[in-house]
Amino acid sequence: MKKLILTLATAALCGAGFAAHAEGHATQEQLEGAVKARQSHMQLYAHNLGILGAMAQGNAEYDADAASAAAGNIAALAGLNQSTYWLPGTDSDSIEGSRALAAIWAADSKIGEAGAAFGAAVQKLNADAGTDLASLQAAMGDIGAACGGCHRGYRVRNN
Amino acid sequence: MKKLILTLATAALCGAGFAAHAEGHATQEQLEGAVKARQSHMQLYAHNLGILGAMAQGNAEYDADAASAAAGNIAALAGLNQSTYWLPGTDSDSIEGSRALAAIWAADSKIGEAGAAFGAAVQKLNADAGTDLASLQAAMGDIGAACGGCHRGYRVRNN
Repeated sequence: MKKLILTLATAALCGAGFAAHAEGHATQEQLEGAVKARQSHMQLYAHNLGILGAMAQGNAEYDADAASAAAGNIAALAGLNQSTYWLPGTDSDSIEGSRALAAIWAADSKIGEAGAAFGAAVQKLNADAGTDLASLQAAMGDIGAACGGCHRGYRVRNN
Repeated sequence: MKKLILTLATAALCGAGFAAHAEGHATQEQLEGAVKARQSHMQLYAHNLGILGAMAQGNAEYDADAASAAAGNIAALAGLNQSTYWLPGTDSDSIEGSRALAAIWAADSKIGEAGAAFGAAVQKLNADAGTDLASLQAAMGDIGAACGGCHRGYRVRNN
């Protein structure tokens, strides 16, 4: 069943309507709420990735159960329907505090492909994190690259 | 399969170790990160409940698909393994910004029962939100009561 859930989760991620909502229908409050929700979602990725990263880098002892739990959380988060928070009109030029570049919603955006690559990396992480340290480390490498797929080109750069 | 996933999710919620970690092992950074993760989790509940609440209160048109999606998100969030962010030492007396009362971790805490009641209400919401407006409204009433089960007595009160 685990595999099926993951497949569903990945499908949901990839289909997470980056252009599903017409900007004109969203109120300012909804746009600001969307950014807040997105940032909360990213914070929860970061929390769980931090646990896995500490193990992968040898700063915490490898714990198969804890690694599985964190990877399972990331898979569940990736599977959330995010169509209500990736709204057009929530880019960094439009909303204070947003770091999402308008390129996400551009006609030539490759955000769908980047999202799919992230979904695949999450699936691998969830399958492998609880196996052993070497498997976790390999999966974390893929996750890092997949995160970069959106963070480079679609997010305001760190100073 | 939906029922099985929900059962697993509820089980995970109820078992989400409120006392699973020994305070002595967590660094200050981990304690602060735990509070941040918790608040992000609550923010995502609020985002999805806001969508459902607007429909239930007649401020937005009832949309079965959108209601199902939001309720599914809440169920998935409730199913996350939260043992790394409900750490002892993260109560409002110990960490700035935390609104969690130390009563959560007290020997006579009834937080487990409150969590179980919330899990049951989430399960009902996820089953009923996409049926029709009346079913959503009924399920939302139960959710409100279940939220109160933790927010009254275990959270610093609103001013």
